[in-house]
This record gives sequence, structure tokens and C-alpha cells, in this order.
Amino acid sequence: MRIDGRDFRTIWLDEGGRDVWVIDQRRLPHRFETARLTSSQAVADAIADMTVRGAPLIGASAAYGMALAAAEDPTDAGLERAGRMLESARPTAVNLRWAVERMRRHLGGIAEAGRPAAAYAEAARIADEDVAVCESIGRHGRRLIEQARKPGKDRIDVLTHCNAGWLCAVDWGTALAPIYEAHRAGLPVHVWVDETRPRNQGASLTAWELAREGVPHTVIADNTGGHLMQHGRVDLCIVGADRATRQGDVCNKIGTYLKALAAEDTGVPFYVALPSSTVDWRIGDGLAEIPIEERGAEEVTHISGLDAEGEVRTVRLTPEGSPAANYGFDVTPARLVTALITERGVCPASEADLIALFGGEERAA
Amino acid sequence: MRIDGRDFRTIWLDEGGRDVWVIDQRRLPHRFETARLTSSQAVADAIADMTVRGAPLIGASAAYGMALAAAEDPTDAGLERAGRMLESARPTAVNLRWAVERMRRHLGGIAEAGRPAAAYAEAARIADEDVAVCESIGRHGRRLIEQARKPGKDRIDVLTHCNAGWLCAVDWGTALAPIYEAHRAGLPVHVWVDETRPRNQGASLTAWELAREGVPHTVIADNTGGHLMQHGRVDLCIVGADRATRQGDVCNKIGTYLKALAAEDTGVPFYVALPSSTVDWRIGDGLAEIPIEERGAEEVTHISGLDAEGEVRTVRLTPEGSPAANYGFDVTPARLVTALITERGVCPASEADLIALFGGEERAA
Repeated sequence: MRIDGRDFRTIWLDEGGRDVWVIDQRRLPHRFETARLTSSQAVADAIADMTVRGAPLIGASAAYGMALAAAEDPTDAGLERAGRMLESARPTAVNLRWAVERMRRHLGGIAEAGRPAAAYAEAARIADEDVAVCESIGRHGRRLIEQARKPGKDRIDVLTHCNAGWLCAVDWGTALAPIYEAHRAGLPVHVWVDETRPRNQGASLTAWELAREGVPHTVIADNTGGHLMQHGRVDLCIVGADRATRQGDVCNKIGTYLKALAAEDTGVPFYVALPSSTVDWRIGDGLAEIPIEERGAEEVTHISGLDAEGEVRTVRLTPEGSPAANYGFDVTPARLVTALITERGVCPASEADLIALFGGEERAA
Repeated sequence: MRIDGRDFRTIWLDEGGRDVWVIDQRRLPHRFETARLTSSQAVADAIADMTVRGAPLIGASAAYGMALAAAEDPTDAGLERAGRMLESARPTAVNLRWAVERMRRHLGGIAEAGRPAAAYAEAARIADEDVAVCESIGRHGRRLIEQARKPGKDRIDVLTHCNAGWLCAVDWGTALAPIYEAHRAGLPVHVWVDETRPRNQGASLTAWELAREGVPHTVIADNTGGHLMQHGRVDLCIVGADRATRQGDVCNKIGTYLKALAAEDTGVPFYVALPSSTVDWRIGDGLAEIPIEERGAEEVTHISGLDAEGEVRTVRLTPEGSPAANYGFDVTPARLVTALITERGVCPASEADLIALFGGEERAA
């Protein structure tokens, strides 16, 4: 997608063909900075500290982490060690494990000397496939946006939570791909952007992305979506997912469940856009089985922003002596999901429908 | 309630008997500052800019505003003008209109010369009555906290949204009064404090109050409550109200509706604590009839906190060029409210039950 007229992906290879470049997403929206990752450890750190984030991008990053690992030590033991390190960087996103396993399986059949080159080629394939998958999600989801258009209303209001735009993937994004497709096709889309406390990925990343592409949008506190839905000011919700289960439960950024409840209560369609690599076929009951990452309390007690002098500063929000808790995700039960938007089409959130669409090969993966 | 061992109310009269002192709630939790209000205009400004906030305290402040008005100009025209000015300071809280009307009615039967003294006496009665009402809410609500205690669990987890503690009233508070009563009675209460974006009344006022009284609590992002309820980590919710309708719909800080939905979905009792002065007997359907205040976008785009040097600073959260919207309240339909906690007891959120408890005199008021 575009930044100041220049096309970008979120992850790309250095001219030397070894190191990996990413956008440092912790600096947005106030600074656009890129970071060069020179080792598999650096990739794991970038995933853990959220320099890169978003399920698909975490997967592509982990793939390049495995490529760096193959360049560092192409032995089975070396790849095994690097894979474990990368997998443990974030506990919730299933794409991380999916990408590491795919790289491990692919390299397992190749002699050590050939592994570095094969690893970079496979990581590039994973990245390119992600772009194609997101484009496809965008095409399928755009039709849902068109269908949600109310007669006599001069805009189509989409609510989204967190960032599931191109910054969360390699390009296009998941939840925002249908919005970009609709906007480029001339549909009058307007996006309500949940700021997404505590890390504010909505206010800082989604708003920034949409502004760069010229998509009309309004940032709101996470508390606001229910009120807007009660008053007919949201035509549909589209969110991404960090992990979905085979029965269609969706684990996404904390707070997603609350918006799904409001959508159900007010009759607003609630869609989840996700590549099939986000489905964890081993798990049925998302509430019981998906581990929820607990992050540092300082993400709740402190916040960063731009001060009047143009400096990025961190300020404390809570009184001294008040503890805070920080759960990263929640699980929206399948019963609250109108449909999943996948690269193969729109699909009810149920085990039978997911299996009908994706068959057996992904389930075995 | 206590601040550093000293007992405070949120509003009190200057030794001279004319000016009014309040706690400047915009400075909390980082600074404890008081403000002297020397005119009815200053009181209206303090209500509008949220130096004082919370439905009961807005009512008591407006009463003292009318007392200052009576000292400034005790004619019918003077009181009429001041009343209109005070009523227009905030559009949603019904206590504001209730207090102004009570003062106007009371002073209407008194000769001009006697009005200033009568006005101060009536304002003091309103403040004292508010304290008694909140104490009574606390006693009734404490029993609900005891009932919600789960066998084998070593604490009782209460979730609250916004600030409905003693800072929102003259003393004790509404939603927090039962918590203070329970805590002082030795019950092992722990409070999940919604930070309550965009103005963060939870993180800045509720957390501060609870810490001063030594009540265990944890600040969470507003997105978190649903996840906690799904996992059995909330035993009951208690929130306050800015206005309730005769059929039991509740208008409270934006985001309350989302927590009520989660409570219903997970079987957690959802209580609303309110004095009967918060009931607007003229209104039935809260969603259709209660005006929702829209405040400045900068409350969403910017935030204040304490920097590393101990200075309070304001920082920008959103990218330049991204607009924001800021709705102050939402309406929780009566069907999602387990019961109302009033000064006369616990009452189902329905017209028949409210009328049975409060009879006709308040309805006519």
C-alpha cells in the first residue's frame, strides 16, 4: 500500500539478500521508521516487542526468521532451536507456529548446504502467498460491504477494532482489505476506528493507514461502538483474528467480543476476515483452549504520544499504587459471528462449513 | 471519605459562608487541588468543564450555584436567568435540572430579602440529603455483594465503569458506596476498574478513591471486562447512572451498555446504583428520548498524564488528519439491568416496581 505516494510492503529483504527490513510499528503514527533485522534472534525480539505485529505479518516474519536461522546454522538442531525460540515470542497467534512448521518441514527434505537458499525462497513464497490471500479476502469482503449499503444513506459505515490492515499483513491486510477494495471501487465507505486500548493499534495504525489511502474514517473510544450500533450508525463490523478454531470461535484483540455482542443485540452483521492459516484445526472450543497472552501492566498505566514540541513522550495515566492487568485478546464465540471472510470465500463460522471450504489438507497441517 | 487521613466532602462552603469550594477533579489523580467558586457563573463553568462531575455532585453544585445566584440577584428574573444558565451547563444529567427546579420552587415562596439565606440552607439540605441517600444505597448494595460471594473463592470481584464513587457525589458515592460498606465490614472485595476512555474517570478518579480507602483494585482497559466475565472472574457489576427513565432504562458513561451485554451473556448480575433524583419520570424509552452529549474530539485525540519529570503533560495519540468523535453516554435498556440499587432498597428495573417504591410524589416533581 502507499506511504506518501511510494508503494510499501511491511517486510522486505535487504539488497544483500540476507537481512530483513520491517516497518517499526511501535513508532507509528508519529514516526515512520524502518528496522533492519540481522539475526533470527532479532526477528524473535521484533515479534515479542511488537516492532512487527498482526497474525499474518508475524507468520511472514517468523518465516524470514527461519531463513536467517538457516543462514546462521542450517543443521536440524539449529533449525529446531531457532523454531522454538521464534514460536515462543508470542503465545496467541497461530500463524507463528504455522509458518515455523512449514519452514521446518520444507527444509527437512533438503541437504544442509542447500537450506539457506531454499529457506529464503520459501519465506518469499509465504510472503507472496499472504499478499494473494489478502487480495482475495478483499474481493470477497467487498461484496459484503456493497450488500450492507442502506438505501437512502450516503455512506456505508464499517466499524473495525484493532489493526487488521496492511500493517498486520504483508500487504492489503485482512479486515481492511475489503475496505480498500470498496474504496478503490468508488463505494462511499466510512470507517469507525476503535482506538483499541491499551496499545491503541486502531488510533495509531488503522487511522494512519486509512489516512494514507484517503479512506474517510473517525477514531472513537472503544466504549463507543455499542452506542453507534444502537442508533443505526454502523452498517457492518469487520475485524481480523489472531486465531480461529475449527468450530469458528475467533480469538482477536481484547474487546472484540464486546463489539460482537452489541452487533448481535442490534442486528448489525459481524464479519471476521482471516486467512485460512489463522485457523487452528486442532482446537474446537476457543474459550477453553486458546491461551490468552497477558502483557505488562505498564501498557495500561502508561501511554505514549506526541507532545506540543513534537517529541514522543510517555506519561502515566493511573495513580501511584494502583495495579493494572493487561490481557491481550478475547474469544468471540462462533454464535456471534455472522460469517468468516476467507481467501476462498465467505463462510459461516461452523466446523462443517470450514471443512467443506478447506477440506482435509489444512486440517492435517 | 478520607484523603491522607483527613475527612473530605466534594463540596463545602467557605468560612465566609458565601463562596463554594470544590475538589478540582480535572487534576486528579496526579494533583489534589481545590477550587473556590465565587459566582453562579463560576459554578456553571465548573460543571461544564468538569471541574466537578458525576450526577449527584452536579446536582449539589447547581444548588449552591443557585445560592450564589440568590446572593447576586434574588429577584425572580435573576433566579430564572441563573437557573437556565446552570441547566444548560451539561445536557444529560437529570440531577442538574432536578436541583435547579427544587431551588427555584423553594425560593419562589420566600420574599426577596430572605432568599439568599434560604437558598444556602436549602443547598446544604440537598448536600446532606445526598450523603444520607448514598449511605443508604451503600447499605442496600452491600447485601448484594455478600450474596454474590462464591463458595471457595477468597475474594469477591466487582467490576465498575467510570467513577460513581464519593467524587461523583457529596460523599460515599453511588456505585462505590456498597463497595466501601462491604470493605469496611471486612468483606474481601476486589474491584476491576474500567479505565473509562476517553476521559479516564476510572483510571484517574475511581482508582485514586479506592487507593485512598485501601480497597484492593486493578485498573483494566475498557475492552477487558467481557473476557474477565467469560472466565468467571467477575462476580457482579455495579455502575452508576447519569439518568434513568421510569421504565428502568439507564443512561450512564459511554461503554456501560457493552458491559451490560457481557454480563447478560455470561450470567453475571448487573446492578445500577442511583438516587431517585436520577430518575427522569417524564421519560420512558431511554434510547429514543435521552439526549447524548457530544464532547470535543480532543478528549479522544489527546490525553494527559504525568511524565518522567513529574509534570502533567498532554500528548496527541492519533495521527494528524484523523478526525475523532466523542459521545459521552450510552443507554443500557432495562432488560439488561438485574436491579437498581436505590436509597429505598433494591428494585427491579421496571416502571411498575419503580412506582411501587417511589409512589407519586417524585413522579410529579
